[in-house]
Amino acid sequence: MLIVQKYGGTSVGNTDRIKNVARRVASYHARGDQLVVVVSAMSGVTDSLIRMAKELMPLPSEREMDMLLATGEQTTIALTAIALHALGIPAVSMTGAQAGIVTDGVHTKAKIQNITPRQIKALLDAGNVVIVAGFQGQNSKGDITTLGRGGSDLTGIALAAALKADLCQIFTDVDGVFTADPRIVPSATKLDEISYDEMLELASSGSKVMQSRSVEFAKKFKVVFEVRSSLGDNPGTIVKEETANMEDVVIRGVSFDKNQAKVSLIGVPDKPGTAARIFKSLADASINVDMIVQNISHGSSAPSTDLSFTVDKAELLKATHVIGGLKQEIGFGDLLSDEAICKLSIVGVGMRSHSGAAAKMFEALAREGINIDMISTSEIKISVVIHVSKGEQATRAVHAAFLGPR
Amino acid sequence: MLIVQKYGGTSVGNTDRIKNVARRVASYHARGDQLVVVVSAMSGVTDSLIRMAKELMPLPSEREMDMLLATGEQTTIALTAIALHALGIPAVSMTGAQAGIVTDGVHTKAKIQNITPRQIKALLDAGNVVIVAGFQGQNSKGDITTLGRGGSDLTGIALAAALKADLCQIFTDVDGVFTADPRIVPSATKLDEISYDEMLELASSGSKVMQSRSVEFAKKFKVVFEVRSSLGDNPGTIVKEETANMEDVVIRGVSFDKNQAKVSLIGVPDKPGTAARIFKSLADASINVDMIVQNISHGSSAPSTDLSFTVDKAELLKATHVIGGLKQEIGFGDLLSDEAICKLSIVGVGMRSHSGAAAKMFEALAREGINIDMISTSEIKISVVIHVSKGEQATRAVHAAFLGPR
Repeated sequence: MLIVQKYGGTSVGNTDRIKNVARRVASYHARGDQLVVVVSAMSGVTDSLIRMAKELMPLPSEREMDMLLATGEQTTIALTAIALHALGIPAVSMTGAQAGIVTDGVHTKAKIQNITPRQIKALLDAGNVVIVAGFQGQNSKGDITTLGRGGSDLTGIALAAALKADLCQIFTDVDGVFTADPRIVPSATKLDEISYDEMLELASSGSKVMQSRSVEFAKKFKVVFEVRSSLGDNPGTIVKEETANMEDVVIRGVSFDKNQAKVSLIGVPDKPGTAARIFKSLADASINVDMIVQNISHGSSAPSTDLSFTVDKAELLKATHVIGGLKQEIGFGDLLSDEAICKLSIVGVGMRSHSGAAAKMFEALAREGINIDMISTSEIKISVVIHVSKGEQATRAVHAAFLGPR
Repeated sequence: MLIVQKYGGTSVGNTDRIKNVARRVASYHARGDQLVVVVSAMSGVTDSLIRMAKELMPLPSEREMDMLLATGEQTTIALTAIALHALGIPAVSMTGAQAGIVTDGVHTKAKIQNITPRQIKALLDAGNVVIVAGFQGQNSKGDITTLGRGGSDLTGIALAAALKADLCQIFTDVDGVFTADPRIVPSATKLDEISYDEMLELASSGSKVMQSRSVEFAKKFKVVFEVRSSLGDNPGTIVKEETANMEDVVIRGVSFDKNQAKVSLIGVPDKPGTAARIFKSLADASINVDMIVQNISHGSSAPSTDLSFTVDKAELLKATHVIGGLKQEIGFGDLLSDEAICKLSIVGVGMRSHSGAAAKMFEALAREGINIDMISTSEIKISVVIHVSKGEQATRAVHAAFLGPR
């Protein structure tokens, strides 16, 4: 089998951990697999490089930051290759550029344009384990670029696509994807499999096992991958295209996000372009908006409506400032904000073919006496905003209703 | 003017020092010079990378060591470029590979084969300061290679040659080349200029301002360079081809090396091939031999001679072990070794045209009652081995005899 494995910064955080990674790779090599190993920078290294750059200049050049940060992964690939040599395994390290990873020219958040894995293949065929620096590539001019947050996962998945690998394993510090956060719901169980869309909805609902971007890439190129722990030998969660029997399960998991805050505009004049004006201003200020809820308008002569949305807690002040500046122009009534909220979501492709998921969720919350503040739904997700003090209780109640134990 | 400047690891040892380098580069940029700046890894970085590699394996792969160590200079180029940006100077960093430095395939001690400075030139012409990673290049396969000890000096001098630079400045932690070590001879003075050959003889006599290799490269490609301090603004020492008036000065400097030990073989049968056998064995054991002295043989029926040579103190044990193993085969009498020695040399191209330098040196030593143990001469150097306890006294006496003050 041709396997691509990706190990994050914690898994390669010091030379002892790199030895552990090498032992795991060696065990796959011993059973005859061909291996491409993608590694991140050792944990802490990237931060210390950023700190030095900021000592020189608050906003350093993005081209030079890429040049700087790429050294982190380059250090790890060399050390990982050496650790494999120590076990008698032939191994060759490659930077992103050497591995044939070509990106666009957008420094610090480059997009992969194409991968020419000719040299990787030649090295694999000669019996080597190939160690590739995650997170990096080069643009068409030969400048080093980096892929932004979650970039090493993306390198792993993109290489698996380019090499038509039989398996892609993302090693991380969790055992896989769970039906809920086990710290909140002790009866939460690890999922054996999950669809790309479910994984995406879970990721955007605060269960940050992986960045959405890598999952989207995997979905686009149909790369089946496994999220698993680098500590034990337990199988993880397989992420793949939705299959018929996946729909037998109504919901896959419950996710909980208490990092959100709510902004409400009361009495917004109901006329075309108002919402666009509001969210354009937020986007211009680089504020990410998650849920948006607007109900039907009321009043007949000068109809108005209430509009609510959620943002990251850290961006609440900035958001109310931006919206406050629009008060005259738009002419809404009050501007309210609330940090004491959380978002609870149920996710599952089965929802599409089974009615009643929403009702069952709302009943579970009602039984606990929990009031629902906002509701938003997608095809495979239902999210509610509730008071933050009720978040964990609600997560357990909803998990029990759908996923047991009863 | 097109100037190549090289800064060593101490000069870029932390972000404050990198800011100092940037300020100096900016002052040259302000007067309209085009600048290529070669930097080493921040002091300590290379050692810490080597330590991690050795934790994984005592003798790590040389290809992977090059991959690993090249990150040191790559970090510095990015930080230096950022420090220049902070001063408003346009600057672009380049790895050795990006700068077009192609080497042979001998990892950890690669030789530069050619440099294609097309991209550096384009960046200079666009008004940029170009920052190049010292010590590194790539081989024809695209693997990262490093140039070995003194590699960053070599990068600077090779780039100056390839770019036909008007000036090449090697910034270091000394003010230049002195007539003697100022710690030993307080009246020692900085030389304004010195010939390549003199610089080479001084380097090989313990005054390690630069590795011989870089000086040889500069001599071969006629690169005039200046060795100067990165701390002040004083001019340093210009190293260049010998000129007619250089010969007016009989000796350029006195150098002193107490890192040597002496090995003597007594009663070596005087027949062809003996010396070759001895020094081949030492070379096979990677032991560097410095001075070799053999006098005429004595005895008429079975003529024999005494042979002495010097090695680094650290290699004395290994050397006596190697030679001891040859005792039967060669059939010499005694094997003596002596660590309590030092080597004193006078160097100067003027020696060639002025007789009497040797006599003057030996007289100066005689006046101090210092016994000479071994003598060896080259065209522009006379070296003597004396007891280590007399080394500093002898250095001062010889310096006074040739270079004053009277």
